[in-house]
Amino acid sequence: MRDLPIILFGVGSVGRALLRQIVEHRSLHADQYGLRLDVLAVCDSSGALVESGHGLDDGLLTEVVAHKAAGNRLAAHRAGGPQSDLTGIVDIAGRSHTVVVDCTASTATVDALLYALDRHYAVVLANKKPLTIDQEVYDRLTSAGGTEFDVPLRHLGRIRWETTVGAALPIIVTLNRLVSSGDMVKRITGAFSGTLGYVMSGLQTGQPFSAVVREAHRLGYTEPDPRDDLSGMDVARKALILARGLGWRMDMNQVAVEGLYPAAMAELSVSEFMDALPQLDDDFCARVEAAAAAGNVLRYAAAVADGRCSVGPVTVPATGPLGRLTGSDNLAEFTTRWYDPNLLVIQGRGAGTDATASGVLSDIIELAFTA
Amino acid sequence: MRDLPIILFGVGSVGRALLRQIVEHRSLHADQYGLRLDVLAVCDSSGALVESGHGLDDGLLTEVVAHKAAGNRLAAHRAGGPQSDLTGIVDIAGRSHTVVVDCTASTATVDALLYALDRHYAVVLANKKPLTIDQEVYDRLTSAGGTEFDVPLRHLGRIRWETTVGAALPIIVTLNRLVSSGDMVKRITGAFSGTLGYVMSGLQTGQPFSAVVREAHRLGYTEPDPRDDLSGMDVARKALILARGLGWRMDMNQVAVEGLYPAAMAELSVSEFMDALPQLDDDFCARVEAAAAAGNVLRYAAAVADGRCSVGPVTVPATGPLGRLTGSDNLAEFTTRWYDPNLLVIQGRGAGTDATASGVLSDIIELAFTA
Repeated sequence: MRDLPIILFGVGSVGRALLRQIVEHRSLHADQYGLRLDVLAVCDSSGALVESGHGLDDGLLTEVVAHKAAGNRLAAHRAGGPQSDLTGIVDIAGRSHTVVVDCTASTATVDALLYALDRHYAVVLANKKPLTIDQEVYDRLTSAGGTEFDVPLRHLGRIRWETTVGAALPIIVTLNRLVSSGDMVKRITGAFSGTLGYVMSGLQTGQPFSAVVREAHRLGYTEPDPRDDLSGMDVARKALILARGLGWRMDMNQVAVEGLYPAAMAELSVSEFMDALPQLDDDFCARVEAAAAAGNVLRYAAAVADGRCSVGPVTVPATGPLGRLTGSDNLAEFTTRWYDPNLLVIQGRGAGTDATASGVLSDIIELAFTA
Repeated sequence: MRDLPIILFGVGSVGRALLRQIVEHRSLHADQYGLRLDVLAVCDSSGALVESGHGLDDGLLTEVVAHKAAGNRLAAHRAGGPQSDLTGIVDIAGRSHTVVVDCTASTATVDALLYALDRHYAVVLANKKPLTIDQEVYDRLTSAGGTEFDVPLRHLGRIRWETTVGAALPIIVTLNRLVSSGDMVKRITGAFSGTLGYVMSGLQTGQPFSAVVREAHRLGYTEPDPRDDLSGMDVARKALILARGLGWRMDMNQVAVEGLYPAAMAELSVSEFMDALPQLDDDFCARVEAAAAAGNVLRYAAAVADGRCSVGPVTVPATGPLGRLTGSDNLAEFTTRWYDPNLLVIQGRGAGTDATASGVLSDIIELAFTA
């Protein structure tokens, strides 16, 4: 049996699901892969629990999950201490072959991630932000393991980021396989937001925009500020990750983003924004009806092609792959040298904390066997 | 720059496409991964070319591709010698980190593959046969690299077999990721034969069965004996590979296979079989029409669920994922704990020598970085 040390940044819903799955699947990982996953540290923005021996025991992990799910901070846990420095946690807790897992949605982890890679640890990202800030940070992250040969190893090095696009759907691994084989990717299109998929499906059934957004907000499908979804910025980050995965050198400000509300509404408070939503109903209703009259539907899509990366609402045939998409399903279509005119299509649930956590866990296990 | 030694078994259409792609993508592999792929040996059933230094040069590889494409045997090539023993070739040519690539459709490679793995080489299979004979052979192949911890490492060890199901579509990697994360796979269904997809699409357009099969045969879409496709055995092998990938212990004789011709026609010569095809036209016509009357279509599908593995013609809704499938596209639908009711779907071209070779090449590159 081999110990696989884990340090977890972020104990939000995905981080908690990951901890639950690590505990639940101990015998699978032992029997099938000869691995024992030792959680050496868990950190949130307030504090951390660290146990650098054989890791936090399962009783304590389960307790931490409940503690965080109840809205408490790690600093307030009996076993927790303050953390002012994630790099320090990596230093204190880590040992050889440690996998640092970032389930935050923050850029505050970047220094610690780069530090971990410099120490020859591995990294798994569910967090999109480190891959979508400066190109230089992307290059440093995805070159990890490549120093020996002075080349970027990307997915073949000591980092994985499958769940940053389409949750656990195998979109990044597919892109990386196409790239490494030398297949020429001409175009990637698709729908990469479960939340906006829900909204667009709702519009299609005739509901007013305001009602669909309020319902999604009430059910917790949107971020606390729904504009974080409706702005399209989250989809834009995913499109940028796909574009950079193709080797394009490009920054967020070069992604063309069309959101689902006018710029003026960005200044409102959340409650003012929710109150103002009905102003948009007529416009969306008209767009949906105009689309339907031509056999089309409205979808929120991303396109990466011809050196250009764009996201926004589009009108597509109701009977096409994107038009048939319902609810929170995501879809990725790759047009390549070998997949044209028959595209390579990946579709399925692109959201959900458990599905996402399972993708993070696959990445972790894979890194245990990467040179 | 690191040398990655390759030994190729099988210089049929996929093997030749692989050699072309290795030569074509030398600068990609050097620049992106720091790798130089050295083809140390190429073997067919007649003979072999071996150059265990820096490998066969690109001019010679290109010449070998043309020589084989013209229908010649390797033993007849000026640089070729006889080979009576693939294990001997592995011994003579191989050096540490060698990747042995099996692009044959034979069981004659099995001893040499096991020998290569015992020597700590890596293996890539486009050949389904080694994975579908005895369970014990499957276990030995997919445990490679696991000896240190006495566990089967499966996809995380020193073997890859992505292109055995759905050509280069990311079906095996997806299955393996679902398994390693502990997601519970309840059901895998789909269409895994480009040839039978072509036949079924043809029937749907109203063509007689005999005409569609003869056309597919003429275009080279079928094997030289079309019964190798129409029997369903090739699809059955793929279903067994998926089932074994789930950890099921099962042999080919436990796969329920319904072919597209009656058992009595198995005894005919190929030309007698082709002449006898029109006998089947009325029956297929009636089945297609009965299906269409209910809004359905006929497809050749595989199902792996509830401990049972079956392949055969099925009637499915014309508007469902399988019913919408056209031509040679393949489709895999995974129903799992986290992908239910929203299934994980992978679709696209599931045939073609270049697409298949590109998947083999991805597997090779990945193994270069596997511990």
